[in-house]
Amino acid sequence: MRFERATIIGLGLIGGSLAKALRRRGLAREIVGAGRNLALLDLARREGVIDRSETDPIAAVRMADLVILATPVGVLGTLLEALWHHVNGEALVTDVGSVKGPLVHLADRLAASRPLGFVGGHPMAGSEQSGYSVSRADLFEGTLTLLTPGAASAPDTVKRARALWEGIGSRVVECSPEEHDRIVAAVSHLPHLVAYALVAAVASSDEMLLDYAADGFKGTTRIAASPGTLWREVFELNRAPLLEMVHRYRKELDQLEGYIKAGEWDALERALEAIRRQRGKIQ
Amino acid sequence: MRFERATIIGLGLIGGSLAKALRRRGLAREIVGAGRNLALLDLARREGVIDRSETDPIAAVRMADLVILATPVGVLGTLLEALWHHVNGEALVTDVGSVKGPLVHLADRLAASRPLGFVGGHPMAGSEQSGYSVSRADLFEGTLTLLTPGAASAPDTVKRARALWEGIGSRVVECSPEEHDRIVAAVSHLPHLVAYALVAAVASSDEMLLDYAADGFKGTTRIAASPGTLWREVFELNRAPLLEMVHRYRKELDQLEGYIKAGEWDALERALEAIRRQRGKIQ
Repeated sequence: MRFERATIIGLGLIGGSLAKALRRRGLAREIVGAGRNLALLDLARREGVIDRSETDPIAAVRMADLVILATPVGVLGTLLEALWHHVNGEALVTDVGSVKGPLVHLADRLAASRPLGFVGGHPMAGSEQSGYSVSRADLFEGTLTLLTPGAASAPDTVKRARALWEGIGSRVVECSPEEHDRIVAAVSHLPHLVAYALVAAVASSDEMLLDYAADGFKGTTRIAASPGTLWREVFELNRAPLLEMVHRYRKELDQLEGYIKAGEWDALERALEAIRRQRGKIQ
Repeated sequence: MRFERATIIGLGLIGGSLAKALRRRGLAREIVGAGRNLALLDLARREGVIDRSETDPIAAVRMADLVILATPVGVLGTLLEALWHHVNGEALVTDVGSVKGPLVHLADRLAASRPLGFVGGHPMAGSEQSGYSVSRADLFEGTLTLLTPGAASAPDTVKRARALWEGIGSRVVECSPEEHDRIVAAVSHLPHLVAYALVAAVASSDEMLLDYAADGFKGTTRIAASPGTLWREVFELNRAPLLEMVHRYRKELDQLEGYIKAGEWDALERALEAIRRQRGKIQ
């Protein structure tokens, strides 16, 4: 598998890392980067990460046989709609957004007027940092990428997307967009919300308390250093599955707090030990 | 500052690391380790970390000019009371417990019948791991240790304890036991409770979800792999300050969830950005 022209729209942490990974692995003859930040596009070109840059997404996808949308999740829908009728009919089109339901359903609707090789994707890589400056060729190695075929995603499209992600070192698992959104609500979106609330509780109590933060607090709240602009969009797009997980989370917090309030220390210890064993299953 | 005989009661992560640090820095001529696990005491002696072992704490503290209580926090009070009248009157006595109010007040009461050089201490080091096997000589380097003088702690006692901790590479800050307990409720105990609840919410929803955990979830919940036996004791001893912080935390979570429920996305983004800036102040 090798692409003639790979177009990546959005050269942030994920898009930049994708360009670097494709380059390093020799998976694309030509890499076109699209974005609005001219200085950043220039830098990526001077570094040899991309061959050509475009500020107009429609110009960028011309003749591309691979199109990856790597913009903030909030604009993916608008972008996909704008590009749909301009992308080469043979191209593989995918994205890296962290919410899948709305985008995949939009793609299914768009496919009714023009079939296209689209399948949604989500590399579960990244960090609280963002931007091209922290992108790296090995970001996806050893990570998990979820592919979320819609009703209109042809098996061959899914197969090509799988080869793409495996080609840059990621494991691939397929699931429905709904299942994806439920998974990330649990293992990503809820933890972010919880971490934000935790920092807010400590800082609002007494800002000097942060001076006493040790490794435990830092690790638990690292993701609360993530950009608010990005997470507002994620929470907005995945509102219902997230609220369902917040509900579950509150029930667990209520139970633990209830043991503490009632002085039921043995019950508390049993609960904590059961949780510790669950957590121990992952490294 | 050099001690003739340092007795450390409890050779877990903290006690074992203390013995190793004192040894490496040459701060004690003789190190006595006390505990109940004979095999572990034997190992520490063979490794040269301690010179002598005792299973009886009273025998262990005989002739010691430094006594450090490094047992689980739940037994510190009983131990301090049992040892108080057996410790050399000139000795520096301290502990490493993560809750300070109850122990320091007990020491103040005990000092009424026999003055002793006691000051409470808490090295804010450690991890979700526990036990001698993960102890290391450099555990305290670059960390913060809180010293919590009670009414009966003489200035000279505090000075010697400060020299001890600084001698093994820690920064030292003094505060009252109450202030300490409020600080750790915020930056340590609440995060642990939150992380436990987070793992419980995900695992109770669908255990397979844990298979999808990426770095964000792992980092946020690492401390939920901490021993339940230990944290039950911490939560019990620091019940009131912890519940106060849980209350504050709930208010912040309520607010963020309220924005999501009401679709107040701009307000949510402003809140998240303000939190991100707070979190950005610490690394």
